[in-house]
Parts: sequence; structure tokens; C-alpha cells
Amino acid sequence: MDGNKTIKVGLLGCGIVGTGLVNLFAQNKSSGIKLETIAVRDPKKPRNIDSIGDFEFTTDVTQVVGNKSIDIVVELMGGYDYAYQCIMQAIKNGKHVVTANKAVISEYGPEIFEEAKKYNVNVGFEGAVAGGIPIINPLLEQLSLGDIKSITGILNGTTNFILTRMSERIDYGSALRIAQEKGFAEADPSFDVKGLDAAQKIAILASLAFGRWIKPNEVYCEGITEITPIDVDYAKELGYVIKLLTTARKTKDGEIDIRVHPALISNTHRLARVNEELNAIYIQGSPFDEYFNVGKGAGQGPTAFSVYYDIVKIAEMIRSGIVRTINVNSTDVKIADQNKVSTEGYLRLYLRHVPGSLHSVVGVLANHGWNVKDSIQRGGPKYEIIVDGVKCLPDIITHEPLPFAVIKNTIPDLINLKTEKGNPIHGAPFYMRIER
Amino acid sequence: MDGNKTIKVGLLGCGIVGTGLVNLFAQNKSSGIKLETIAVRDPKKPRNIDSIGDFEFTTDVTQVVGNKSIDIVVELMGGYDYAYQCIMQAIKNGKHVVTANKAVISEYGPEIFEEAKKYNVNVGFEGAVAGGIPIINPLLEQLSLGDIKSITGILNGTTNFILTRMSERIDYGSALRIAQEKGFAEADPSFDVKGLDAAQKIAILASLAFGRWIKPNEVYCEGITEITPIDVDYAKELGYVIKLLTTARKTKDGEIDIRVHPALISNTHRLARVNEELNAIYIQGSPFDEYFNVGKGAGQGPTAFSVYYDIVKIAEMIRSGIVRTINVNSTDVKIADQNKVSTEGYLRLYLRHVPGSLHSVVGVLANHGWNVKDSIQRGGPKYEIIVDGVKCLPDIITHEPLPFAVIKNTIPDLINLKTEKGNPIHGAPFYMRIER
Repeated sequence: MDGNKTIKVGLLGCGIVGTGLVNLFAQNKSSGIKLETIAVRDPKKPRNIDSIGDFEFTTDVTQVVGNKSIDIVVELMGGYDYAYQCIMQAIKNGKHVVTANKAVISEYGPEIFEEAKKYNVNVGFEGAVAGGIPIINPLLEQLSLGDIKSITGILNGTTNFILTRMSERIDYGSALRIAQEKGFAEADPSFDVKGLDAAQKIAILASLAFGRWIKPNEVYCEGITEITPIDVDYAKELGYVIKLLTTARKTKDGEIDIRVHPALISNTHRLARVNEELNAIYIQGSPFDEYFNVGKGAGQGPTAFSVYYDIVKIAEMIRSGIVRTINVNSTDVKIADQNKVSTEGYLRLYLRHVPGSLHSVVGVLANHGWNVKDSIQRGGPKYEIIVDGVKCLPDIITHEPLPFAVIKNTIPDLINLKTEKGNPIHGAPFYMRIER
Repeated sequence: MDGNKTIKVGLLGCGIVGTGLVNLFAQNKSSGIKLETIAVRDPKKPRNIDSIGDFEFTTDVTQVVGNKSIDIVVELMGGYDYAYQCIMQAIKNGKHVVTANKAVISEYGPEIFEEAKKYNVNVGFEGAVAGGIPIINPLLEQLSLGDIKSITGILNGTTNFILTRMSERIDYGSALRIAQEKGFAEADPSFDVKGLDAAQKIAILASLAFGRWIKPNEVYCEGITEITPIDVDYAKELGYVIKLLTTARKTKDGEIDIRVHPALISNTHRLARVNEELNAIYIQGSPFDEYFNVGKGAGQGPTAFSVYYDIVKIAEMIRSGIVRTINVNSTDVKIADQNKVSTEGYLRLYLRHVPGSLHSVVGVLANHGWNVKDSIQRGGPKYEIIVDGVKCLPDIITHEPLPFAVIKNTIPDLINLKTEKGNPIHGAPFYMRIER
């Protein structure tokens, strides 16, 4: 341990966030931290780097992960297995590691943290979730001193941008195109719009909060692709907005109820005004009551800044000999079965405009024990819609809390509903939860 | 330095926050931190302490600040000079200090930080500003790595609660009484309602953000006592809500524009929905873009938790030999002269209902170069009000940006306005800024 030691940093990957990080190094020269080597596939690729420092580019990752003079390896390559291998090799070589790779952390967190413990090194990943919101370090530090009851958030900027456009009555397809034009959505947007990105992020946060590692495939997940302007309108009329919510909470039985899905939330809800590409995290617990933070979820500046903060923090820990171990190996905490979790919700059906259609539909709901709250169907040319050439009336139902299994069992009975005039429901019913 | 040393804590004062802190110690027994001695005026006073640990009460503060076995002195007595003396004595005795005392920190911060540097000890004061929102440590750590441009906040829970009630058309006096009944306002509320509490808090935050100590009396300050239901109504009509805002920002000239005053903010503003007794802090800067956090500003749980986190953090720093120095001695940063700061605003006058009154008023405004935006006066029994027995019509004016000096010079001309029929304005004009 040496309190004045210059800490040397090696970087794997130099894309958008990496470039931002290099520029942060250039702006903070007096911090006793030095960028030494950057491993990239193509050193000659043009990069928007403010000032070329005295670091060097290499195409050989071992020049970083195996470089004796490097203290901290920063992984910004992205991807899964190769990035994971590089991180593990760096740790085995006694390097501290900083990464913004949520895919690797959510998939391999426990292995990485165990290896770090074994080799007495620190791992930082503030940039992996909600780039511009400080959440990983708070969860590892002050919030872990309290008792966390729930984490609710908007953790995917792409879908929040799309849903914000949709709240202006732009349909899903057009909103997605706008997001793609603005660089907020990928050419293949499925990872974001299906909720998989948000699932990785809430899995990481919940794992740290509850001390039990949760893999992304343990998170119940629905995407936003089936939402229509009709849903947006009725949500508004009923006093709600639609958000892709991520939720992790301890149930009464001590299980973890964890899920990602679009939901109707009250327009007075803390998260209702978090719009555009912003992210937000709302944590409830004791004795701190609540922790609510809004910020950019991604982007060069915010994410590079989080990575840089991790580097500064770990440099300080190196100088003072601190190793922060991360314990996520609790095995006595179960993931709640979503079928048993009760929820309120919103059902939208397209009803053929024939006598008895509403009656037969609410008959199915009554059979399954639904206690209907709102029931709205409006007739006349203003409200009729043509779906695949069939004239329909949208029918909206909301209900009192029901176990999710009941809802899942109801949907096939609606799809297979038979009356003398055929099925009065045209197309697939669409269901969305309502969250308080 | 000893990585396993049990850190011993002494407490000065055991009121509401102190009691909460003692209970947090009882709940976290394995942390290697031990509460040793509590100095109070009356050890026999009934206190709601969960479990009596093996700490002892004393009436002698030297048993804490001069106790050889104590590492961290926690000051929760409140007040100014005596608390300051105790903190300084503790530091001189080589103790690390944690306090939630915003009065002492805002008044004596530089002296305390200098003394701490001299004696090589740490000072924590996360509980001093916005109890439940982590802001002091973020300002000292990650945010200080970036470049802070502005801090805007709602930092006084009492006035935010009162203004929330007023937004429901309850008048100031009644809203204050509700706040007092709920324990959100003191019997003498002037420290809160005049903005002095918020001024202490923004002075601390701005000092840390800009590296130049700002005393509370350097903060321009207006209170909320003159706001009426008429202002609430017109604010709403114009798309605003009224909040007691605290602002500190760097001007183009590199000066610090720092102030506390009620302001109209757009109902879509980030802070518009922060209601009840909540606090909020919104920081803009680069490269993190924005940092927005909402939480409880005070209360036993949140504040005790912030104090406890400081203790845990400083215990870790003691074990690893870290001393975090706080530098606020920049002398080349000036406080902006409010007279030169431009602002938009809202003017409310009570006009006598006589011919020519509006004409003579807007004549005064025109003479001073006001470029009027909204001008609203409504006649008829629904809008007329009787002020001190005089029938008046409220007249509302908003304007394009003007240096504050122009506004200040305009008000006396309105008060002293003379026409053939006397002064058409009844009572004092009321002015409030509009913030974007």
C-alpha cells in the first residue's frame, strides 16, 4: 500500500463510452491516475479524442490484462463471453476491474465477485445500470445499511422515449422509427422493446439489494410492442400513463417478486413524469423511507462519468488497501411465482359490433371471478375501428386485484369464446398491469 | 491504522434524531462500530430507545469530546456556538466528527474543515442538508469530479408542505396552522417561512459545489408569507405552480448567483410535482448532465440514517487511514450582485376600480422599460375583492427578462403613484420571480 502511488489504467475497447472516458482522463490530469494502454481491434479507426496523451493503442488485449504496470483494467468492449474471459483473466492477474457491461455482470456477477474476493481486488460497475444515475455504489454502501423493501424504476431509455412519443398519439411503429433516427433505438430494437435490457438491469439491482443473485432469465418479462394508441387514450382517460416498469420487491412471504412489463401508473405517480430517454429509480425501505433519482440512462457523458468515478474510487481503495467484497450468495431467498402474485390490470378487446358480444365477454370474466372496476365501450363512427377488415368497438375493462394465474387462465377462454354468432372478440385480447 | 479496530462513537445530544441513531446502532451490532457514551442535559428524560445497549449516559460533554477511547464524536445537540465549540474541541482532541447541524456548518464550515485538516481527522455532515437525500457525500466525491453549472432545489419541507396546502386554495395562515398541527412547522415558523433555513442549506451545497465558502447572509432571501390564494389561482391559470426555490448557479461571468425565494415554475418543471414535506435537488453539469434526487428532507429515520452512514463511512476511513480534506477556500469567485441578475416575473396589484387605473399603472411599467407578457384583470362580482374595506380588482402582470434592479426601482414608483384620483393601487404590490 502506498498513499501516493500513481494508479495505472488499461482500457479494453474504445467506442463511444471509451472515447468519453479518454477525454475525461485528459481533463483531470492531476488526479494521480494515468491511462496507460488501450486495446482495440483497429487502432487506426478515427476517434474523437480531444488530446492524444502518452497512452498507447494496441490490438493485443494481453498488453492490458497481462501488463504488470497496470492496476485497473476497464472493460468497455461489450458483448458476453469474450468480455467475461478478459475480466476474469485480469482478476487472476491481480488487476482491479471496472466495467459498464450489464450483460456480463448480470450473467456472471457471482463468478466475477468470487474471483475478485479470491485475488483481493475490487470490481466497479456503476456504469452498467442507468449510466447517469449513481445507483450501484449507493446500493453497495449506504442503502445496504438499511432494509430495502422495493425497487421500482424506468431502466430502459429506448422504450421510455418510444412511450413518450406514443403518449402524443404517435403509433408504436412510427415512434420506433423516430427513436431509431435519433439514435435511441437499434436497427434491431428487440432487446430493448421486449424488455430484456431492463430485465438485465433490474436483475443486477435486485441482486445487490437482496443479497441473492438473480439471473435475467429469472425476471418475468413483457415488452411494449402490442400497445396501441387506443390503449394510450383510455389510459389517459382513466388517469394513467403507460410506462415500461421494472419492479423488484420483497413479498410478505419474503420472496422476491421481480418483473419487467408495461404498466398503467397513475398520472400522479412519482414515475409518471419521467419522460423522453430518461431513467429513474425509486427505492423504498427503512429507515431512509425513499430514494428517488432521475437521470440519463445512457449516453457518452453520463456513462463515461460513472466509469471514471469507479476508477477514482478504486484508485483510492488501492492506495488505502481497501477491498470491498460483494456478497450475493444468499440461497434462502426464493423468486416469487408470478402466477401467485396478485395484480390489478387493464384488458382491451376488439368486439365485433353484434348483439350479445359484451354480455358473453363479461360472462367469461365473471366465470373466472373478475371483479370489474372500469368498463368502457363507446359506439358510433368516432370510436369504431376496422381491424383486418372487420368493424369493431374497443372494449376496456379494469379489475380489482387477482392472482396473475387467474388472468392467464382467462385469456384463452376469451380467445376461444364461442357463441351462436362465432367469437365476438376479434384478434388477441391485450392485457396490461396497473401498478399503484 | 488497524483494519479490524472497533470504532468507538460518542454522541452529544439525544433528541429525536439521536434516539433514531441509537436504535440504528442497536440494529447493526456486527459492524465493528460501538456506541460508547451519550452526553445529554437530562439522562433521566424518557427516550424511546429500543434496547438499552452497554453505552452510558453522562451530563458531562468532556466525557465524550475528551474521552480517550472515543474515535468519532457525533454532534446532534443543535444550536450554534456551543455546538461549534464542542466540535472544535473534539477535533483538537483528535476525534473525527459527524454532525447534522446545518447552522454550525453553514456558519463555521471553513474553520471546522481547516481544523480537521490540521488534526488529520474527517468531518461528515450528510444529515445537515436534506436529511433523506444523499447529497453531501456525492458533492464531495463523484460530482466534484465533474463541472457543476447549477443547483436548484426545494430544500425546506415546512414551506413546501404549506405551499402544497395553498395549492389546494387554503390560505397561508390556515396552511401554516395545519403544518404546525402536523409537526412540520415550529410554533415560531419564521426561520422556515422567511427562507432562512433554505438559505443555510443552499449556502452549504453551493460552497461545496463551487469551492468558495458562502455564508447564509450572502444568500439573497425572500419568504412565502405574502403569497395569497389569488396568486395561487393566477399561477395555475398561467400554467405555473409556486415553490420556494433555492438556486445557485455560475453566471456567464463566473460569479455565483445564489438565492432563495418563492417562484413560479412551469407545471411541467422537474420540481413542480415535488409536494408535501418532500425535498428535491436538481444539479446540472458536465459530463453527468443532470442529477435529480427527491426524498424526505428531515425526520427521525432519514436523518438518523444519513448520520449513521457518515459514521460507517468515517469508520472505514479510520481503518484504512484515509483523511478526506474539504477545500472551500477559493477566493477568486464572487457572489453575483442580484441587482444585475436578469429575471422574468409576476406582479400582482390590487387596483381601485376607477377609470384610468390600469393605464396609469402600465405607464409606470413602460417608463421603466417593462415588456409586458401576460396582463390579466377581470371585472365583476366574481373577481372583485375587498381589501381593508376598499373594493379592488386584482391585476396580474408578467414580463420579459429585466435586471432585478429595474424591478426594485419600479416598485416604489408604483407605491407612490399619484393621479388626480389618488393612487389607483391599493396596498403593496407583490412581486415573484418566474424561473424556467
